[in-house]
Order: sequence, then C-alpha cells, then structure tokens
Amino acid sequence: MASYLEQNQERFLSELMDWLRIPSVSADPKFHGDVLRAAEYLKARFEEVGLEKVELCPTAGNPIVYGEKIVDPALPTVLVYGHYDVQPADPYELWTSGPFEPVIKDGKIYARGACDDKGQVYMHVKALEVMNQDGGVPCNVKVMIEGEEEIGSNNLAIFVRENKEKLKADVILISDTGILSNDQPSIEVGLRGLSYHEVEVTGPNRDLHSGLYGGAVANPINVLCKMIASLHDENNHITIPAFYDKVAVLSEEERAELNRVPHSDDEFKQSIGLPDTYGEAGYTTVERIGIRPTLDVNGIWGGYTGEGAKTVIASKAFAKISMRLVPHQTSDEITEIFQKHFESIAPSGVTVVVRPHHGGEPVVTPTDSVAYKAAADAMETTFGKRPIPTRGGGSIPIVAMFKTELGLDSVLLGFGLDSDAIHSPNEHYGVFNFLKGIETIPHFYRNYAAAAK
Amino acid sequence: MASYLEQNQERFLSELMDWLRIPSVSADPKFHGDVLRAAEYLKARFEEVGLEKVELCPTAGNPIVYGEKIVDPALPTVLVYGHYDVQPADPYELWTSGPFEPVIKDGKIYARGACDDKGQVYMHVKALEVMNQDGGVPCNVKVMIEGEEEIGSNNLAIFVRENKEKLKADVILISDTGILSNDQPSIEVGLRGLSYHEVEVTGPNRDLHSGLYGGAVANPINVLCKMIASLHDENNHITIPAFYDKVAVLSEEERAELNRVPHSDDEFKQSIGLPDTYGEAGYTTVERIGIRPTLDVNGIWGGYTGEGAKTVIASKAFAKISMRLVPHQTSDEITEIFQKHFESIAPSGVTVVVRPHHGGEPVVTPTDSVAYKAAADAMETTFGKRPIPTRGGGSIPIVAMFKTELGLDSVLLGFGLDSDAIHSPNEHYGVFNFLKGIETIPHFYRNYAAAAK
Repeated sequence: MASYLEQNQERFLSELMDWLRIPSVSADPKFHGDVLRAAEYLKARFEEVGLEKVELCPTAGNPIVYGEKIVDPALPTVLVYGHYDVQPADPYELWTSGPFEPVIKDGKIYARGACDDKGQVYMHVKALEVMNQDGGVPCNVKVMIEGEEEIGSNNLAIFVRENKEKLKADVILISDTGILSNDQPSIEVGLRGLSYHEVEVTGPNRDLHSGLYGGAVANPINVLCKMIASLHDENNHITIPAFYDKVAVLSEEERAELNRVPHSDDEFKQSIGLPDTYGEAGYTTVERIGIRPTLDVNGIWGGYTGEGAKTVIASKAFAKISMRLVPHQTSDEITEIFQKHFESIAPSGVTVVVRPHHGGEPVVTPTDSVAYKAAADAMETTFGKRPIPTRGGGSIPIVAMFKTELGLDSVLLGFGLDSDAIHSPNEHYGVFNFLKGIETIPHFYRNYAAAAK
Repeated sequence: MASYLEQNQERFLSELMDWLRIPSVSADPKFHGDVLRAAEYLKARFEEVGLEKVELCPTAGNPIVYGEKIVDPALPTVLVYGHYDVQPADPYELWTSGPFEPVIKDGKIYARGACDDKGQVYMHVKALEVMNQDGGVPCNVKVMIEGEEEIGSNNLAIFVRENKEKLKADVILISDTGILSNDQPSIEVGLRGLSYHEVEVTGPNRDLHSGLYGGAVANPINVLCKMIASLHDENNHITIPAFYDKVAVLSEEERAELNRVPHSDDEFKQSIGLPDTYGEAGYTTVERIGIRPTLDVNGIWGGYTGEGAKTVIASKAFAKISMRLVPHQTSDEITEIFQKHFESIAPSGVTVVVRPHHGGEPVVTPTDSVAYKAAADAMETTFGKRPIPTRGGGSIPIVAMFKTELGLDSVLLGFGLDSDAIHSPNEHYGVFNFLKGIETIPHFYRNYAAAAK
C-alpha cells in the first residue's frame, strides 16, 4: 500500500509551487513586500504541521519565521535552519519559463528558489507532517527560517546572539547543499567562507569624448581591468600580500582522501560547456573548489553599454569582487587586506573606493559526531548507498556563526545537484530530490533520537 | 545701428532649440522616427533661406538633407557638410536638465546636440539667411547634412560615391570641431581616425554559483580584464604587434611647433578634475592627444550589476574597445590586426568574438590652401586674433573619405570648446560661439570667392 508520502506528494509539490510564485528576492528593495508574503506563507504552513509558538520574529531587516515542537525536555533538540529569500532572477531573458512561474518539466521543478533554498526548506515542513502520521517527531525540534541569507544574514547573527536560550539545542540541521548525484549521496563537511566587495574607480569628473581626451587621461575602465588582472599571477595564484598566510595546508593523505571523491574533469567540462578547466596551478579541480581560496569578479560595468558605438571615456567604472575563503582564513581579515591592497594599487590619476558587502567564515564540520552518523545512516537507508563526505565550494556563513554563538555543530543534509543551476537562469530542483528529502529526514530524527537515548 | 544678426539672434536661437527638442539619436533604433522628424525640420529651414533643389536623399539608413544655390557656374563651389544625428544621451540621471529640453543657462544652450553637431550646422543655415540680406552668397554653395555620423557614416560614403557629379565642388566646409578658447581661435588641421569593436568573452555555458565552481573555471570577466590589461605595457605603449608600424613620426621641429599651442597641464587637469595626466611615456599631453594613436575601453559589462551581492560567475562578458588612429594608419588594417591579436590572446577555457563596429581614417588638412587662408582671415576678422592650426584628437571619418572619393580637402571651421561636454551629460554650446559662427561664415565666403576670382 502506498505510503502517506506517496499519497500526498502531488499536494506537497503544489504547496511548494505556490510558495515559489512569491518572488522573495532579498537583494532588491522593490521585492520587499513579496519577501514578507513569503514569510507569512511559511508561518501558516508551520501551524498546519503542528509546530507551536509559531511567530515572525522581527529584525532590523526581514523577519525570521520560527516554530518549535517540544515533545519532552529530556530528549535532545534539533534546530532546523534554512532561508526563504532567493537570489535575484536576472538575466530574465535567459529563463525558458518565468522564474516565479514554477513549472515541472522532465521531473524537475523550474523556478528561482526551487532548490536554493525554498524547496529544501519545504522538505523539512513536509517531513514533520509525515512524522505526525507515525507517532510524531521522536525528539524536540525548533525550526528557524531566515529571509536574508542571500545578502549576508547580518540580522540573523544579531537574533541568534540575543536569543541563545530560545534557540538552545543539541545540533543544527540544514538542507542548503547538494549531493554528488542521485546515485551517490554525499554530505558536505567543508564550506568556504566569503569576502564580497563593490569597487568604484573614478577618473575624470565627467564622461569625456575619447577623441578629444583619449591618450591623455586615465580611463577608469582600462585602469579597473589592469587592477583586476593584477590580482592573479600567471599561475592563477592570488597576488594579494598575506592572502594565503592562514590557509590550512592539507597533508598528502588528506589530499589523497579528498581526491577519492568520484569526479571526472571531462564530465565537469561537458556539464558547463567548457573546453578546458582553469585555475590555480598545482591543484586538482576538486581541490580548487574544495580547499583553495579564490577571487572572482561577479559583475563589472562602466561606460556605454547600449546598442551601437559611443566614443566616450567614462568617468567611473565599477566591479563586484568576491573571494571564497578556506580554513583558517577569516572574512574580516581578508576583507581588510583586500581593501588595503586594492586601494594601494590604484595608479595616480584615479581614485578608488572599496565597499565591503558581506562575508562569511569557512568551516569544517565533524564526521564522527552522533548527528553526522544519524544523517549518514538515514541517507544509506533511503539511497541504499553510504554517503561520501565532501568539501563543497559554497559558503553558508551562518554555519560558522552558529558554532561561535551557540557552540553547535551543523549537519548539512542537502539534496540538491550541481546541475540545479542555483544562482543562474532556469534554477530547478528534482522532484526525486524533493521527495527523497522528505523521505530521508524522518530517518535522521529516528536515528538521532535513538542514539541520544 | 544693430546688424541683421543682432536683430534676429533671439529667433535664430529659438529655431535651433526647436530642432534640439527632436531626439535624433542614430545609435538607437527606438529614435528612428525622431531622426526622420529632425531631417524634415532641417529641410524646411533650407527652403526658408532660399536653397534650391532641396530634398531628403534616401539611403539604406537615415536620409541625407541636401540643398544648393548655384549663383554662377563660373564661380567656385563650397560643399558644406554636417550631421543632424546626435549621440545617445544616457546616463540621463546625470543631466541637470533634460537632454532634449534645451535651456539657456549662463549664456550656454544645454541639450544633446547643442554643439555636436546641430548647433554648428544651424550656424551655416542662418549664415545663408544673413548673406541673403547683403547681396546673397558670393559663390556657389551645396549643403549636405547626414544623419549617421555618430554611427559611422557608412551610407554617406555610398551616397558620395554614387553622386560625384551632384556633389562637384572646390572645397568642403565643416563645422564639427572646436577652438582653443573664445579668446584664442584655432582651426583643426589634423584628425585621428577610429577603429571601434565590440568584444564578447564566453566561459561556461550558463551563469554559475561562484562557491560551487569558483577557482575551477575560467571567469569570463576576469579573463576579459586580463586581456584588456595586456593591451598596454607599463609605459602605456599599445602592445598589439605591428600597431605602430605605419604611425607617422614627426620631426623634432614639427613636435616643437605642435607644442607651441597654448596648453597648461594644470588647467587641463583642473578642467576634468584629475590629480594627474596619464598616458604614453615620452609624449606631452598635446602630443598624446594630437599625434599618437590610443586604445580606450568605451564600455564594459558582465555578471550581476544590480543592487547588493550576487555570488555568480557570469557566462559572458562584453566590452566596447576603440582605437584612435593617426597618419598613416588605416582603419581597415588596424581593425584586422586588433581582431587577430585579441582573438589570439584568449586563454583556453574561453571563446572570444570580436565584432568590428565602424572606423574612420586619420587625416591632415593643408594650411597653405586658398580655403584655409580664407577661413583663417575670416576668424581673424571676427575674433580680432589669428587662429592657430591645431591637431585635435577627434575623428570625422568622412574627411578622409571626401579626399578619396571627391578629391577635395576640407576646412574645419568649428566653433565648439573642449568644455562643451559633447558625448557627455550636460552637453552645451555657447550662445557666443553660435552667434560668432554665424558672423564668421559669411566672411569665409567673401574671402574665398574673392581669392578664387
């Protein structure tokens, strides 16, 4: 006979799609009303699945949706974290269907936030509903879903600092990462940190005619390109002084272990349509993504970008530059040395301003904890295969913050795939992965509650 | 008693302002209807001042406004050239008044095209009206005003090639340049050519999450910056092989003569708010602008450029890159070697496309011709000071084309100022300059007709 999950999966999917229709883009003020609607929608779902003390906790920014179920103070408590805000959807023209008009095509839900992170958050809500049909959640659970993960979680950090008692728990459970493939489950144990900046280069006090002035004034776009180019050497090492000083150096054994992860450069290249990989000399693709810091320009703009030709020397040029950090770099330190260095390499003839955006600390989570084992066992049960511990490249800044503020480790029980195109046009999430998550999470609670007895 | 010009200057100004209200932006298709309205407006003004055979000559693009007055086939013929199309006005937010809502503030007309080139074209129309009050124009005149100068004049070149008989003349008169100052008239005798390109760098086949992929794939923005940075060496020499091969080398005497032009680096820096000049080692500012070729990025864009932070690796990055050329470089040659070089420096891991936009040939016009002397004498009469021959940096591609196709030299009798901010927000044109032009042009005709007798 069909399980409760099988009987209700259509409804679960349509509830998620209703939520995905709300464009909860936190980076752009014009979506503020939608962000609040997305929070209200989640609050109502919390109440439906029997969470208690459900509330929208106000912050200086977007509210945090909170609910809990304390079945027995003697039992351990799991604190579930996720985020209901999403990345901006542009460039819109590259989406094959509207980013906020979710559709299911060949077994995938297409929409901004389908995977990151609304789809993965909603697995937890529905997992609670499933457990309610089977004696309820076997330990205590607190659920905290924020609305500012994509813009740095600054207000969450304040909220956590001010609500340590309310958030008291034994472990943090997060689904905001991925697995290697639907045949090979994995659990992230290493996450890179982030230092993100907007830089502004100003040359002349107004746009100039390139014919009348070209050759005699600093062109801020040329200068910005030169400055950015100078940040990497010919081996793609980052040239910022002291940048690598604190980078954790792995032993040969650790590197060998890391490279045992199933990975094919050919498949990797094919999946993103690149003729070649590219990166820091002396490291494999897995290492470049997992254990090495990086510097990428995320956006650049200046001068005339319309149709046709305009022979202008722009007054200003801008770029968004971010660095991925690894243990034991810290976001504050790297932010400071980047700012100092970038300003120091500005040639006379231009002025440079560096505006730090947000950061996040790199972390490595333990693989020998009760919680990790409970998660690994749960995946082994539902996938029929033991998950591999991996060191992904993304950063969930708050994982480090939880460790510092609450003293709690996190378990990154994510179900996404690299191919889900999160942060890109046509983001999607497999129906298989969504349902597999709802199936797996109750096993985690059962394993964890049992082990903690 | 007040001259006819003095009596009618208010009307002349308001007629010009009516014309400036029509946004004749040729680079952007959405203004096509306005471009045609601007041509119709000019055609009507031609008829008012007694030009004959007035017509809109059709081309594959925007029409050419033509009119002529043949007073006596035995007399020499002046062919007046100008353009009624204007540069795009963006960034709009930097204009203190609407680019197409002309206003006069402290003796200057503010509007896109006020100087470049509607204002200067209209001086010629009104100069004809003024001469009509005083026996009429003393020699034959043909007036040809095109609508595609800002996008390369490709259709004008075809029109000229196909209408050599119709355009038969003895000299070409153009007001699309400037003078050193209102106290120091000057006449451009050297103009740089142009080679303009749009480049596109493609990395991954879609935008990627910089955390999941950063460090392992070629970031097209970083790559584009590196490629652009490599186009200049530490002395700001352009590194493209063979780029300088044909550059005319001036003798020490010629350089000394050139540097006699009144110029102050301090005033130059102050006028554009720069702490320092910047450019090719071994040359003065006057030389960098006048006799040396340059390479400038006119626009760049890629990745996330909205508010806040988006941790993305873009699939594509773009730039508009143009080079100013000097005798004896040719636009076609430089376009070819730039394209070949830029594609050759692309690292494996990205694909690069170079799309040439439009070009123009550098020219030097004679200073010992009857026409040049007629122009210099006219300015000396109205300014009370002998004009200095200068080598400006701008390019009027068709000056070289006229020489090739019609075998005619041009006289660049322009009245703008470097500070007019053409191609920039808040373009303006001095009322003094507009009226001085209308006053000077009849003297040119008188001097030229007399000398040719």
